[in-house]
Amino acid sequence: MTLKGYRFSVVDAAIKKPGDPDVALVLSDEPAIAAAVFTTNAVKAAPVLLSMERIQSGYCQALIVNSGNANACTGATGLSDARLISDTLAALLEIPSTMIQVCSTGVIGVPLPMERFTTALPGLVAEVGSGSVEQLAAAIMTTDTFPKCVVKSGVAGGVPYTIAGVAKGAGMIMPNMATMLSFILTDAAVAANAADSLFKSSVNRSFNAITIDGDTSTNDTCLFMANGAAANPIIEAGSDDAVVFAELLDQVLMELACLIVKDGEGATKFVTITVTGAADDSDAKKAALAIANSSLVKTAFYGQDANWGRIFAAVGYSGARVDQDRLSLRFDQVLMAKDGVFAGGDAEQRGTEVLKQPAFTVTVDLGVGSGHATVFTSDLSHDYVSINADYRT
Amino acid sequence: MTLKGYRFSVVDAAIKKPGDPDVALVLSDEPAIAAAVFTTNAVKAAPVLLSMERIQSGYCQALIVNSGNANACTGATGLSDARLISDTLAALLEIPSTMIQVCSTGVIGVPLPMERFTTALPGLVAEVGSGSVEQLAAAIMTTDTFPKCVVKSGVAGGVPYTIAGVAKGAGMIMPNMATMLSFILTDAAVAANAADSLFKSSVNRSFNAITIDGDTSTNDTCLFMANGAAANPIIEAGSDDAVVFAELLDQVLMELACLIVKDGEGATKFVTITVTGAADDSDAKKAALAIANSSLVKTAFYGQDANWGRIFAAVGYSGARVDQDRLSLRFDQVLMAKDGVFAGGDAEQRGTEVLKQPAFTVTVDLGVGSGHATVFTSDLSHDYVSINADYRT
Repeated sequence: MTLKGYRFSVVDAAIKKPGDPDVALVLSDEPAIAAAVFTTNAVKAAPVLLSMERIQSGYCQALIVNSGNANACTGATGLSDARLISDTLAALLEIPSTMIQVCSTGVIGVPLPMERFTTALPGLVAEVGSGSVEQLAAAIMTTDTFPKCVVKSGVAGGVPYTIAGVAKGAGMIMPNMATMLSFILTDAAVAANAADSLFKSSVNRSFNAITIDGDTSTNDTCLFMANGAAANPIIEAGSDDAVVFAELLDQVLMELACLIVKDGEGATKFVTITVTGAADDSDAKKAALAIANSSLVKTAFYGQDANWGRIFAAVGYSGARVDQDRLSLRFDQVLMAKDGVFAGGDAEQRGTEVLKQPAFTVTVDLGVGSGHATVFTSDLSHDYVSINADYRT
Repeated sequence: MTLKGYRFSVVDAAIKKPGDPDVALVLSDEPAIAAAVFTTNAVKAAPVLLSMERIQSGYCQALIVNSGNANACTGATGLSDARLISDTLAALLEIPSTMIQVCSTGVIGVPLPMERFTTALPGLVAEVGSGSVEQLAAAIMTTDTFPKCVVKSGVAGGVPYTIAGVAKGAGMIMPNMATMLSFILTDAAVAANAADSLFKSSVNRSFNAITIDGDTSTNDTCLFMANGAAANPIIEAGSDDAVVFAELLDQVLMELACLIVKDGEGATKFVTITVTGAADDSDAKKAALAIANSSLVKTAFYGQDANWGRIFAAVGYSGARVDQDRLSLRFDQVLMAKDGVFAGGDAEQRGTEVLKQPAFTVTVDLGVGSGHATVFTSDLSHDYVSINADYRT
């Protein structure tokens, strides 16, 4: 990892279970070009409200993030807590508090344990540089079973640069936003307008195409920072370097999005849902999400049951225009249904074999046009229920 | 039970597991005034397509229904199978086939076993009158764990009449329609226009206010028949007798709807979700359904976890207008959150006690207007996953 100009530290402030780091600091040596996408939930956590306001400047120099407590549904107290954290940190770092993004993830509706939090800040600042992007990935985990970190390198104008991304997800994953928290850090020098548009279109292709359970959280945040420490010639919108940069950014975000699905709460299957033949792309996405979010479909995936009828039923109530006499469906390459009816032959046996794999693709053609969309999802297992029935205990 | 002028028979045609009756016949002595509500799913089963066409006449004399096979996603074959069944039955009963409603429920995508089905019809006709409304309720069960049958009696112009309703539900329950199959039979004489409007508004208050998993089936049908065999003075729209009749009809449908929720696949809780303070009733219903369909909320109910934050999160992404600083939430009478934040005190302990009950009410006030709505739902348990992972095996 050669990500330049960023320093990290993590600390255990006893916000989640003791022994696990739960607060992390990211500090850029210089103010970075920044962009962010936040939850569309009308109920927004305090740190989201604060960070949304601050990102308007287009710059960010530091990020403070905690896991174990979402600081959501905490009202005016929550907002003043988020402000106090960033003000305290700003004083310690000697930077403006408006240059600090604040993120939280965890239980909703419980005020942050502020004494423990603010007590931890001086150590976090003193130790900055001691940590790593991998430790950041671990510190933001809640029900995640593994840290999610992806790093790619590129070259612009002959100068190498790095893009490092971390994410945490698991449950409550649904566009838009699809991730709970993700931070994308690059040392590339990128023009502000290029950074914003490349980042947001990459988010749409990745995090906004995954769904675990249809729930959209109060805290979802995806933050992008580009501090220019690689000292490459600035990547301008529309340039060849921008094309390369966009491709790498897409790879980082898509890999992180897929890691989130793989680590979906209780997930045993990674399922790609592709819808073709829709009246338009929007209809295709509606149909794909209806399939991906259907509890009946997801339990059939878990049971390795080639129950394609449930998938047609989900398409039928999705709101997408369909011709039920022209619907077709494949599990990987196996044609299960054609012209709205069972394809016959040994499709049942072959389809069941496909579903026994840990990863497979479901392709549904709606038979009415040329719109298409792809989303990624997991199955619905006994463990999903266990994890979420006992989350706070 | 004194329901006059209807005869019943059931038979085991080996469509579902052997030993359980799976085909039932309902025959009215005379053509009955009839109305029906069908699935809004764009993918409609063959019997639905046929019955939708026939109900236009406003009359029905017989109903043939099978469980174990939905005759859905079966294309032209499915439609000709449904027609053949009703044509064969019409010849045996010596009534027009257009006076027969056809219903199916069960696995999607498998053609009906027609030989077994048609072979069973002569016996069904020969034995009509030997069966009961309770046997009808049992014959239409799929994953239901108990038959659902509700009977009420009323008086119109001094003459007693009866309303009997049966339903089957379990999974794939979501407005509109909320039930898989329900048949409401009365011997009252009811004017056609009154029958249609009273029935449909009653459906909206009952079956369209319940949800188990957000899935809407390809086969949902709710059929109403009024054959006038009680010989009461005809119940006219707007009359006092119509008010009494509507009240009884509401009771029958609401009790059936609640039985479906209680028998929701794997359900351990019966939950009433009431949303108040919405911008309008439509927003209130959106918010109530988002809560009722959230996997995260439903698993928390299963875990008896007073996790009100997840409910606020569901309200937030429902699309309903909310003021997050004025949201409040109660579990039964226990105020859990007010002005968007935790109510404090011993609310956590008291709220948890409420959730330990088999049935409770969640009341959420959105703080923006006077719209309100109530829906009924169940929790999401390990058994839901087991039932649906193994449905076809």
